[in-house]
Amino acid sequence: MTSEFAIIDRIRRMLPGPPAGQTWIGDDAAVVPSPAGRLLLSCDAVVAGVHGDLALMGADDLGWKAVSTAVSDIAAMGGTPAQILVTVAAPPDTDLDALYRGIRDAAAACECAVVGGDLVNAAVLVVSVAVAGSVDGEPVLRSGARPGDAVLVTRPIGASALGLRLLRSGRPGPGAAVRAYRRPVAEIAAGRAARAAGATAMIDISDGLAADLGHLAEASGVGLALDSVPVADGATLEDALHGGEDYALAFTAPDPAGAGAAFAAAGLPSPAVIGRCTADPGDRTLSGQPLPAGGFEHRWEQ
Amino acid sequence: MTSEFAIIDRIRRMLPGPPAGQTWIGDDAAVVPSPAGRLLLSCDAVVAGVHGDLALMGADDLGWKAVSTAVSDIAAMGGTPAQILVTVAAPPDTDLDALYRGIRDAAAACECAVVGGDLVNAAVLVVSVAVAGSVDGEPVLRSGARPGDAVLVTRPIGASALGLRLLRSGRPGPGAAVRAYRRPVAEIAAGRAARAAGATAMIDISDGLAADLGHLAEASGVGLALDSVPVADGATLEDALHGGEDYALAFTAPDPAGAGAAFAAAGLPSPAVIGRCTADPGDRTLSGQPLPAGGFEHRWEQ
Repeated sequence: MTSEFAIIDRIRRMLPGPPAGQTWIGDDAAVVPSPAGRLLLSCDAVVAGVHGDLALMGADDLGWKAVSTAVSDIAAMGGTPAQILVTVAAPPDTDLDALYRGIRDAAAACECAVVGGDLVNAAVLVVSVAVAGSVDGEPVLRSGARPGDAVLVTRPIGASALGLRLLRSGRPGPGAAVRAYRRPVAEIAAGRAARAAGATAMIDISDGLAADLGHLAEASGVGLALDSVPVADGATLEDALHGGEDYALAFTAPDPAGAGAAFAAAGLPSPAVIGRCTADPGDRTLSGQPLPAGGFEHRWEQ
Repeated sequence: MTSEFAIIDRIRRMLPGPPAGQTWIGDDAAVVPSPAGRLLLSCDAVVAGVHGDLALMGADDLGWKAVSTAVSDIAAMGGTPAQILVTVAAPPDTDLDALYRGIRDAAAACECAVVGGDLVNAAVLVVSVAVAGSVDGEPVLRSGARPGDAVLVTRPIGASALGLRLLRSGRPGPGAAVRAYRRPVAEIAAGRAARAAGATAMIDISDGLAADLGHLAEASGVGLALDSVPVADGATLEDALHGGEDYALAFTAPDPAGAGAAFAAAGLPSPAVIGRCTADPGDRTLSGQPLPAGGFEHRWEQ
């Protein structure tokens, strides 16, 4: 079994790296120059049966999810997504109308235009979404956290994992958790508010809070001392730490009160302070105990 | 059996269309505003077993082909590709090192940077490539051809289909046709030269000359009266008209002699004049006979 992250790291070392001032592979989105400003580029794929079980969600939900997960990477830079390219590899029996309805609705919700795409035949349904966006000023990378910075999350975590469990139980009910699994929402406004409030590092929570904060801490060379984790209604701490696919944003900031004020000014719920960054990169604690390791790897090992 | 093009047309009608001055779905690449200039965006996917048979080509070839086919769409606008995002959906036994070697080498050949990507598990190998690029001045759309314009192609056609046939025969030899199938080259310099020489419309030949010139003529509202088709060494007219995956460029220009001079000035082989555009959109002739209909649809109907 080779970890997804180990494979990606090997691939990254095979490819040429960026010149100073650009960000390529390894952050939420790439940051490249454009004639007057910076272009943000990112892509993400969802695979039926891996990222979404079509017995538990419609093709429209899968289309929605593909767009939201890709756009979320632009949100995690503090950027504004603008254009979307959608590549669909699909078996002949796919409900393409439903799929593209979900894609269209998610793009509209993100105020993005679907400007192109490709549609090809394949034995399994794969939806790949590439997003181009922009950022006012400096994008928020994963690597800028400093010891002493507060760690914040934009909302309680774990709802998507709970939703999946409820759906698998056969008695999901109409709740928010099922919606969180089927129709995750990219936090574009929150990402912009965090950037405006001086966030030093940011990431979207796609693989569980533990794994994603770990990526941020590793990129920044800091440790993590968490006090608490806000868990979504009905979810467990395990769901929040390792469940994945939440698409809340986690960020660090030297002035958490200022961040709260910026969110309030934008009409957004106040982000929760959940701990702080430490100087020892080996620190990974929750309430003084070792933070449980592990993470959600989208079943790469299957 | 529903045609790939009919499905794409239905999808296009489902989605919001562009404002004046932008090009979204329906051309080789999207043209969208960026702070100072125009951004070109395009994406393409190759699927093992549909666009490339891994019994006849290596994973490195498939990676190369995925990049070249996507970049070719930027070439067909007269643009310059710059950044690439690569999404790979792959079964666990995929030779990822070989695949990414081919991706890296094709990107280097196109002077593009691989700035991001995603890697997910799937039952079938799908490589989706999104490309961002730029264009000096006006991009060359499919829709600008006018009656009387000459129709040109950048090189003889049909080599890829011949290469596939040779490989399937088990006695491929080391020839150019096999290279054309395994390692197609996007004609970036030729696309720029055509744009500089006043090309009125342009398309890359991915589905066979007949189908792709048909797309161009339909978008432009013109007819086609072809005199001849330059066929690659050893290939047949059928290979050139319907074989697909050549990635030569076809374009229209009011001044074919000027186009030849622009290509010569850029150190490129002279494009061949193969006919002209007519005023009757119903015209589709080759040497005065009806141009054989049909096209290469990447086996969507399977």
